[in-house]
Amino acid sequence: MRNPTHAVNFAAPRGFAAAFKADCKETFFPDDPFHKLKHEKPSRKLKKTIQYFIPLFEWLPNYNLRLFRYDLLAGITITSLAIPQGISYAKLANIPAIYGLYSSFIPPFVYAIFGSSKHLAVGTVAACSLLLSETIGTKASPKDNPTLYLHLIFTSTFFTGIFQTALGFLRLGILVDFLSHSTITGFMGGTAIIICLQQLKGIFGVKHFTTHTDVVSVLQAVFRHRDEWRWQSAVVGVIFLAFLQFTRYVRQKRPKLFWVSAIAPMVVVVVGCLFAYFAHVEKHGINIVGDLKKGLNPPSIQYLNFDPQYLPVTVRAGLVTGLVAMAEGMAIGRSFAIMKNEQTDGNKEMVAFGFMNIIGSFTSCYLTTGPFSKTAVNFNAGCKTAMSNVIMGLCMMLTLLFLAPLFSYTPLVALSAIIMSAMLGLINYEEMIHLFKVDKFDFVICMAAFLGVSFISMDVGLMLSVGLALLRALLYVARPAACKLGKLPNSSLYRDTEQYPAGSTPIPGILVIQLGSPIYFANCTYIRERVLRYIQEEQGASDSKTDVIEHLLLDLSGVSSIDMTGIETFVELRRILVSKGIKLVIVNPRIEVLEKMTLSKFTDAIGKESFYLSIEDAVQSCRFSLLPNKTTLEEFLNDVQTGV
Amino acid sequence: MRNPTHAVNFAAPRGFAAAFKADCKETFFPDDPFHKLKHEKPSRKLKKTIQYFIPLFEWLPNYNLRLFRYDLLAGITITSLAIPQGISYAKLANIPAIYGLYSSFIPPFVYAIFGSSKHLAVGTVAACSLLLSETIGTKASPKDNPTLYLHLIFTSTFFTGIFQTALGFLRLGILVDFLSHSTITGFMGGTAIIICLQQLKGIFGVKHFTTHTDVVSVLQAVFRHRDEWRWQSAVVGVIFLAFLQFTRYVRQKRPKLFWVSAIAPMVVVVVGCLFAYFAHVEKHGINIVGDLKKGLNPPSIQYLNFDPQYLPVTVRAGLVTGLVAMAEGMAIGRSFAIMKNEQTDGNKEMVAFGFMNIIGSFTSCYLTTGPFSKTAVNFNAGCKTAMSNVIMGLCMMLTLLFLAPLFSYTPLVALSAIIMSAMLGLINYEEMIHLFKVDKFDFVICMAAFLGVSFISMDVGLMLSVGLALLRALLYVARPAACKLGKLPNSSLYRDTEQYPAGSTPIPGILVIQLGSPIYFANCTYIRERVLRYIQEEQGASDSKTDVIEHLLLDLSGVSSIDMTGIETFVELRRILVSKGIKLVIVNPRIEVLEKMTLSKFTDAIGKESFYLSIEDAVQSCRFSLLPNKTTLEEFLNDVQTGV
Repeated sequence: MRNPTHAVNFAAPRGFAAAFKADCKETFFPDDPFHKLKHEKPSRKLKKTIQYFIPLFEWLPNYNLRLFRYDLLAGITITSLAIPQGISYAKLANIPAIYGLYSSFIPPFVYAIFGSSKHLAVGTVAACSLLLSETIGTKASPKDNPTLYLHLIFTSTFFTGIFQTALGFLRLGILVDFLSHSTITGFMGGTAIIICLQQLKGIFGVKHFTTHTDVVSVLQAVFRHRDEWRWQSAVVGVIFLAFLQFTRYVRQKRPKLFWVSAIAPMVVVVVGCLFAYFAHVEKHGINIVGDLKKGLNPPSIQYLNFDPQYLPVTVRAGLVTGLVAMAEGMAIGRSFAIMKNEQTDGNKEMVAFGFMNIIGSFTSCYLTTGPFSKTAVNFNAGCKTAMSNVIMGLCMMLTLLFLAPLFSYTPLVALSAIIMSAMLGLINYEEMIHLFKVDKFDFVICMAAFLGVSFISMDVGLMLSVGLALLRALLYVARPAACKLGKLPNSSLYRDTEQYPAGSTPIPGILVIQLGSPIYFANCTYIRERVLRYIQEEQGASDSKTDVIEHLLLDLSGVSSIDMTGIETFVELRRILVSKGIKLVIVNPRIEVLEKMTLSKFTDAIGKESFYLSIEDAVQSCRFSLLPNKTTLEEFLNDVQTGV
Repeated sequence: MRNPTHAVNFAAPRGFAAAFKADCKETFFPDDPFHKLKHEKPSRKLKKTIQYFIPLFEWLPNYNLRLFRYDLLAGITITSLAIPQGISYAKLANIPAIYGLYSSFIPPFVYAIFGSSKHLAVGTVAACSLLLSETIGTKASPKDNPTLYLHLIFTSTFFTGIFQTALGFLRLGILVDFLSHSTITGFMGGTAIIICLQQLKGIFGVKHFTTHTDVVSVLQAVFRHRDEWRWQSAVVGVIFLAFLQFTRYVRQKRPKLFWVSAIAPMVVVVVGCLFAYFAHVEKHGINIVGDLKKGLNPPSIQYLNFDPQYLPVTVRAGLVTGLVAMAEGMAIGRSFAIMKNEQTDGNKEMVAFGFMNIIGSFTSCYLTTGPFSKTAVNFNAGCKTAMSNVIMGLCMMLTLLFLAPLFSYTPLVALSAIIMSAMLGLINYEEMIHLFKVDKFDFVICMAAFLGVSFISMDVGLMLSVGLALLRALLYVARPAACKLGKLPNSSLYRDTEQYPAGSTPIPGILVIQLGSPIYFANCTYIRERVLRYIQEEQGASDSKTDVIEHLLLDLSGVSSIDMTGIETFVELRRILVSKGIKLVIVNPRIEVLEKMTLSKFTDAIGKESFYLSIEDAVQSCRFSLLPNKTTLEEFLNDVQTGV
């Protein structure tokens, strides 16, 4: 019997504490944030730790005039986007327009202190604004009781902040991982559709509208009130929309002219204001924003409403919008960091978002995060640090102090055109087609979000899609891929016989099966049945009595972990195999699997000599125990015939 | 550059239909039930198909007198258990005792026709009886409105039947896989505890009791009514319990005397009846069952109550008890089949249970399944086929026709002793200790069920435990094990360097990482961060500038599938690596992963020459492109110094 060069390492299992610590570290600190501190002196350690928690201290000491020039330009550019977006999205959330401007003043300063991304621009987002109004609107009407409604919006923003901060401190960035690429594509697409349709209200100047967000209700509301349509409004809206879409087209063709599309919304607002002021548009049925007070954010901490009657709805709105806002903010921050070959820390970002929203809810701001559009403009405008957010905050302050009343002439139709134009870019139908081509299940997950959001409601669509994605994850887990391995000719490689048909059974009587993915309660019945079926198929394939399987080699290289039910399955499998006269051989168990096998005495039960480090070693050993000295059956029969 | 012996197989991806069919087959037909039919003639195919769906036709034609002798004995033995258990568990479900006897008459016949297990004995079960009474009791009081309560029990049994049949036909046996070994251990233990405590009512002869099932409420109820305690009842109860426990002890010591414990409950009932009859125990505060009518099951189909008011509770009770009953029945059937080296078909079993409960609900039976205790007795009594169930059914018929009134004298305290004794055996504390030693998380899952059932309620405990188990499954999926591979000296094996510290980096500048488990949305952020951290660690380990990584080899042998987000992650990872000047090499992708990589053009993007079939091939190829002709850095430096 050939001795294998290397044996399986049966070192004593790690203690529970060591294993638990290692697991926790992988689960919650996969990025190993304190990695760099290991070899530092205590004084530097403290400094680095402070810098870790407050990134401001990391970049501010090295800040210089050259960087400031870039950030100044970027800051002014994003301000020109922040004003129209702030007003528009506040309208989408059914709150007075001034709160949209407030929300672009305080939060950018908070983010500049705690945020780790260099390119993220802080602001309100369309999807969350609509989601907020949809959820809060079920309990308080923005029309009949605007004060209560506004206070509930603040409260829900407060809960969002608490939730985001808590997730960040608990290092639960993992939650965001459960919003898959497909879910986000579908959710964004669906949201864009319904937000666009909602803008028909503004474009046509309709006054009576529905509070529902689904496609059917919105279209019904628009067409039921045909008598309220104003052609003047529609003409202005279409002209603005055409202008905005044209600037987007210019940007696509000439990426260097990105600033044209960046300032276009501001141009629309300014032109709209001038037009409204001089043409007295209100008399022609074009509504304006109206009534924007001068002055900075008033405190709103006293308005937080913890009345048990409204608690469920504010908490729910806080959690759902918090999750969506976080997903958007983290995804965009991460994307741009990758472009610049930097890394962002998801958990730190969450804490920054959380602080931003908590402080925001105290100072008359509603939900803010890092919106796609604004961040992209910030990046393109050449921002270098979070200072661009500070610039934006300062510009907003000046606007609030001196210019706010000017914007009161903004026609609502201009805002609708701005929102529509922004949303049209979010319907990523190319990605959907790509999903359909590559992975049908991902396409279904995407469509669940898309159709769910469009036809039912935003949170139902989101939950449906996440639910499907989780179901898929569980199915992955419940039906792990197993395959039969064959030896490739002229090599010692064993590969899936389905994938590499050249692979063949090394020696009759030996069956090699590879198991993949963790083995545990959800899949172990399947694994047992599947392995037994492989044996059945193998023995059924040829009718000759000589093709009886004597050894079953299980390659566990791909099995990363196992639980108690999994171990029981191995015990059971072995019992069945013994009764069939088949010997079970384990190949290359990973450290965690081997530990559990040893702890549960399975290793002792089948004997350490049944463990091998490579398939080749195992096959070579088994071949000697098959029948004395035979290499293949023919050779053996030859031997018998020639009387050796 | 060395040409590898075998290249990765880039065959065209399977069509969607083929891949979908294969996936569906693995998900729903893992046991490939029609495997044997493939090579049969059409006439035999039909016969085999009928035999497949109605197992009765499989064993009945070969049935003979010898087998019948065994089954007759087993059938009589389980009848002696069925009568006391039937009465006891009906009391546990708060319905008249006679319905417990009815439930052992019709269902066994149904199971004999459709059931695939040879050893399973049909009957009512304690856990589900209590669960039913707990759930239905919230909507209808068994005391104030016994008729409505009884009808709701029938309705819920009907729903259980529909649910089980549907699951069976939809081949969703997979659902039962989600009740893990640990969950069942904990659930059984917790249930046993609360059922035992409930029996204190019978033992002490308390009349006023609580409808709650948790430990605290039950103990409070027992001790609050100390004035109702009857010492006579307690004495009789303790004597019976001691006798029953003694027979269990005998069985453990002498397995051949299993029949002693099998008939012990019947002995207790008969002795109890005689004692009650002659001693007029009612006068001494010992309650008897009372009023058992002669006659067979009356039809109950007209009593099924689909009133929308009660629908939620009956449907919920039907689903939860159905799932629990199925898990118990399938687990026990499977265990005994394995002992005899036979296989049971989970989906067929579900259909059989379903039919049993549907027909049962039409004929005054309540929820039945294959109870642990009865099946074990059946097996030990030497049953050979499902005929033992038929015998039990016939015996029950005779009992119902002629003997039922005799059992009306059964003292309640005797039933309590029987239930208690049966339940004490279900608290598997050894298994719990074992779980604690081998797998802490499994222990937590088990304790969640145990404590949840004991202190809150049965369905909360069950859901808590299943929820934890699912959370764990998702965590497994979200944090897949990755490891750095090192080459073992004197071999071409690459193994985890943590597990085999002898393994070392083959050549400076090449880093080999092995990924395990499926890659998709829930874990791809983690995977990207983890891989980047490995690079960071590797480059940070030595300060020399020469230790720069030039090639990253990703071994994907263990990655059984990938989704769109996973592919995006690879695209992103490659972009980061390119910017760091590192070349990405993929080793041995499995068929499904390679298909998706090809469909999404990732293969073209990194080039087919970056795919290798084995790590050794990849390393050999990379080494030539590192720096011309160098094998190790030293050699190269030597070469440079010596001026080659």
